[in-house]
Amino acid sequence: MPTYRLDLIYDGTRFHGFARQPGVRTVQGEIESVLARLAGSPIDTTAAGRTDAGVHAWGQVVSFSTLDPMDPARVVRSVNRVAGPEIAATSCLEAAPSFNARHSARWRQYRYRVLTSPSPDPLRRLTVWHVPASLDLAAMKAAAAGFVGEHDFASFCRAGRPTVRRVDWADWAREDDLLVFSIRASSFCHQMVRSLVGFCVDAGRSRVDPGSVAEVLAAADRAAAREPAPPRGLILWEVGY
Amino acid sequence: MPTYRLDLIYDGTRFHGFARQPGVRTVQGEIESVLARLAGSPIDTTAAGRTDAGVHAWGQVVSFSTLDPMDPARVVRSVNRVAGPEIAATSCLEAAPSFNARHSARWRQYRYRVLTSPSPDPLRRLTVWHVPASLDLAAMKAAAAGFVGEHDFASFCRAGRPTVRRVDWADWAREDDLLVFSIRASSFCHQMVRSLVGFCVDAGRSRVDPGSVAEVLAAADRAAAREPAPPRGLILWEVGY
Repeated sequence: MPTYRLDLIYDGTRFHGFARQPGVRTVQGEIESVLARLAGSPIDTTAAGRTDAGVHAWGQVVSFSTLDPMDPARVVRSVNRVAGPEIAATSCLEAAPSFNARHSARWRQYRYRVLTSPSPDPLRRLTVWHVPASLDLAAMKAAAAGFVGEHDFASFCRAGRPTVRRVDWADWAREDDLLVFSIRASSFCHQMVRSLVGFCVDAGRSRVDPGSVAEVLAAADRAAAREPAPPRGLILWEVGY
Repeated sequence: MPTYRLDLIYDGTRFHGFARQPGVRTVQGEIESVLARLAGSPIDTTAAGRTDAGVHAWGQVVSFSTLDPMDPARVVRSVNRVAGPEIAATSCLEAAPSFNARHSARWRQYRYRVLTSPSPDPLRRLTVWHVPASLDLAAMKAAAAGFVGEHDFASFCRAGRPTVRRVDWADWAREDDLLVFSIRASSFCHQMVRSLVGFCVDAGRSRVDPGSVAEVLAAADRAAAREPAPPRGLILWEVGY
């Protein structure tokens, strides 16, 4: 059976997340509906990251297999015509039969954008978290540094086992009027990036000591962490294979 | 009567333009409704730029006068609470009684953003024009240079007299994966920036000779120009007083 890799960008604002669910509009539901129409029969897809409701993707990767070969260029055109403008296919390629967007992935990179201006910005309201405060970037960078390495992230995970993950790097940078968090890990448990961002922003507001990361990790208890940041600032940025 | 200057950002996507019109949702209608509630009586506003449906603003300036003094901080809070999240007030200040956002303005600056990637970008779809083509930036810069100075822009204006305007500068620049047009003029006639952008993009596609700007201006005939670019890429950027 021919196997394909499909790369997607989407605005998650008006979707109930990536994963197919009966009765609600999801990214996977839209994509599988386009593919089924092209193939003439149902097609199951697998994604590198099952993003939550309101979370965006710039580099989501999906894989699927079909009985008969499909024209990859036609898949791209159909996704863009039928599932756009909130979803765009940037490429579709035939992959090795063993390729699986989820299991073959070596790492996932996410970005989270915080706008700290006194006023909100209507032009970017769907893709940033507006925190009208003077945040201490050094404290946020220090908190992020504490996440790097292999740890049990149970304190920062909403659910799911195992909670041990390897974070390759995590850091904050200023980009114009935004503070941008970038993190790369083998994989992430549920709500992990948003929980880490919530902790960092609290560190930036001096509500929590950035040096306490090791302690919070050791507690392996969600109550030890902070409120997760809202989904709209989060973007699944890139997946490595 | 105390006079105020109110600075606004807005996402014009879902508004029928700036100017108040009966029966439809406009930016001016929303703002005047907030101000009338605060003042307890109707308030007329004047804006630096009457942006069209779908056009955005990062630096729109509005002025209004009231019978009784208002608390500017309260105006900002009310606009953001009631008219947000598509409109944001970034500041409100008491101004000289002679201040008029439209007539006191010395210049207006607009920006227009073109995305030239092969695929559309759902995350920026509301604020860019997607032109999936390899555009010749040098030709676009040459066309823009032809607009600078005082000219009769009748060929690039949908309606309205006089059509003689003074363009201080106009140029294109590459910013990451975008081509960005910036233009500053004393004022603009209707659809002028979008018509200039349409011409430049046609020059970038080699559909029109960038050296023909003088000839098109001299024709003073709208038929000599090109299709205007769509509104979503346009942002009223800054107004000078």
